[in-house]
Amino acid sequence: MITIVVGTNRKDSVSFKVALHYAEVLKAKNITNSILNLRELPEDYIISALYENIGKNEQFNKIRDRMNKSEKFVFVVPEYNGSFPGILKAFIDGLDRAKALADKKCALVGLSAGDQGAGLALSHFTDILNYCGTNVLAYRLRLPKIGDSMTDSKITNQLYVSKIHNQAQKLIEF
Amino acid sequence: MITIVVGTNRKDSVSFKVALHYAEVLKAKNITNSILNLRELPEDYIISALYENIGKNEQFNKIRDRMNKSEKFVFVVPEYNGSFPGILKAFIDGLDRAKALADKKCALVGLSAGDQGAGLALSHFTDILNYCGTNVLAYRLRLPKIGDSMTDSKITNQLYVSKIHNQAQKLIEF
Amino acid sequence: MITIVVGTNRKDSVSFKVALHYAEVLKAKNITNSILNLRELPEDYIISALYENIGKNEQFNKIRDRMNKSEKFVFVVPEYNGSFPGILKAFIDGLDRAKALADKKCALVGLSAGDQGAGLALSHFTDILNYCGTNVLAYRLRLPKIGDSMTDSKITNQLYVSKIHNQAQKLIEF
Amino acid sequence: MITIVVGTNRKDSVSFKVALHYAEVLKAKNITNSILNLRELPEDYIISALYENIGKNEQFNKIRDRMNKSEKFVFVVPEYNGSFPGILKAFIDGLDRAKALADKKCALVGLSAGDQGAGLALSHFTDILNYCGTNVLAYRLRLPKIGDSMTDSKITNQLYVSKIHNQAQKLIEF
Repeated sequence: MITIVVGTNRKDSVSFKVALHYAEVLKAKNITNSILNLRELPEDYIISALYENIGKNEQFNKIRDRMNKSEKFVFVVPEYNGSFPGILKAFIDGLDRAKALADKKCALVGLSAGDQGAGLALSHFTDILNYCGTNVLAYRLRLPKIGDSMTDSKITNQLYVSKIHNQAQKLIEF
Repeated sequence: MITIVVGTNRKDSVSFKVALHYAEVLKAKNITNSILNLRELPEDYIISALYENIGKNEQFNKIRDRMNKSEKFVFVVPEYNGSFPGILKAFIDGLDRAKALADKKCALVGLSAGDQGAGLALSHFTDILNYCGTNVLAYRLRLPKIGDSMTDSKITNQLYVSKIHNQAQKLIEF
Repeated sequence: MITIVVGTNRKDSVSFKVALHYAEVLKAKNITNSILNLRELPEDYIISALYENIGKNEQFNKIRDRMNKSEKFVFVVPEYNGSFPGILKAFIDGLDRAKALADKKCALVGLSAGDQGAGLALSHFTDILNYCGTNVLAYRLRLPKIGDSMTDSKITNQLYVSKIHNQAQKLIEF
Repeated sequence: MITIVVGTNRKDSVSFKVALHYAEVLKAKNITNSILNLRELPEDYIISALYENIGKNEQFNKIRDRMNKSEKFVFVVPEYNGSFPGILKAFIDGLDRAKALADKKCALVGLSAGDQGAGLALSHFTDILNYCGTNVLAYRLRLPKIGDSMTDSKITNQLYVSKIHNQAQKLIEF
């Protein structure tokens, strides 16, 4: 069971489209998987689900449960302002670290409109995951110029298709 | 004019207390300053002020204006899960980068309950600020075990008091 | 078979002493291991074993072979100037990445005289190892104030002893 | 007076060619400058100029003096194995931090054969410079696919030419 986390709450995000692609790849390998889109976070998440309200937001608790029950993750991380979206880190801040992240495994996919491919974002996010006890697959995928690599919401850049396939296989064996 | 940003929206945060201390130090040096506490962010910030709603939230637009008008910043950054709080990055994601951050200057103060003093947080945040065009003072301050360093909400660790004083002076001359 | 790399070429380094401790821990767990001290690098390494001379220095080729044959590593990384020692990265630059590092696994131990415990060094080095294809155990160990934690060249800080034991066990199961 | 440091000791490096270009740009702006090529490091640098031999290698002491006398720097940083060359950090490790780096200012230029443009290298190196007290210009330049951007050892990619010009101007005003 692998949960694919869409690392932004932007509506109709490219990250969600990449997650859909990844889900198909895993399904073709007979791996049960599920997409968790940060679009599902409560509107008042930053107040109702953090700090003194940790664990008290029923809507978010369902999301926490999904993370707790998953053994492996794929995080799809778009580049915003040279790093990951703030909402992705805010999401991590609302989890039960010990149950959701410790001693688990994950793969990272970075994407950007520009030419960096979220390289720094993946570096920063690896530090956070390692701090939380999640082992990160060495093969971190960078997908720069993602807009030029898709047609009709599908990834058509064959190099990217191949890289995702390879990463998925490595994650399964990790 | 220096704006001191409290890098969390936690209620009664230690970061706010450190910001109050920093404000006193700047005032004693005759530097006009103002505290911007992320506690002031709208409850539905992650929906109402980002992406297609950028610039459309009147409550947040007042905060954007304060950032746009300030030439220098101090960011007080508490360590959450091995990096900065997600809300701090989400705050950056809602700004007008060109007006708020480009070609400006700032100093960073990291603090933690544990012994890291937000070292990784400051590294990550420097990458983000540099990407946005903000020059970061080399002298990044780490204040580990901040709880043991305060009495009655005041910083009583004299080494920390001295370091803040030195950083403030460097920021003024930066 | 685990190779413990002493990440500096300093004579009589504390890192070497920590490596000796780690070797004992692994031995007690019946894991064959070997210490590779960067002190063994040729004096003219930066000329004779890099760039156009890659693979041509017989003395260094023996070290390359040891890396190629090992499946797991422990890197003991002292903090120099806020990161890892330059010689540790120069060592990586002289390896055959595909044979020495790709698809292997490692654990990182950082140490420092000061209070950072090589936190940034481990972050930087993780990026390098991931680039080279080496999976890094999430549980990165920081050992600040290492001088105060040793007596007669032995680690006597029981918290550190316990952490090393835990990391070694995790590396074996990784 | 600006010193341009070629961040590798590779013979006939592309970094040296980029440094030559930068020197011309600074000269055209009437800024005195000088190139310091790490190719000039002693062959046995890693033994004769570090640790117990710090400050004892006369050949390297001349280089240390050049760093001590310079107020601003440009570091040209090629990407090796996902970060800066080990020799660049080893060079930093042999300096007198207080005299060479503290309270000075610098600009960073990253270059790579591949598509990263040394992004992570510049992030790591910024941490090190900040630790040593050197203020880093926010506008860090990444020059990916540098091979495709040069003709007859000259930078012919006009976007890169323009970016270097802009950075040089910012460094002068920093």
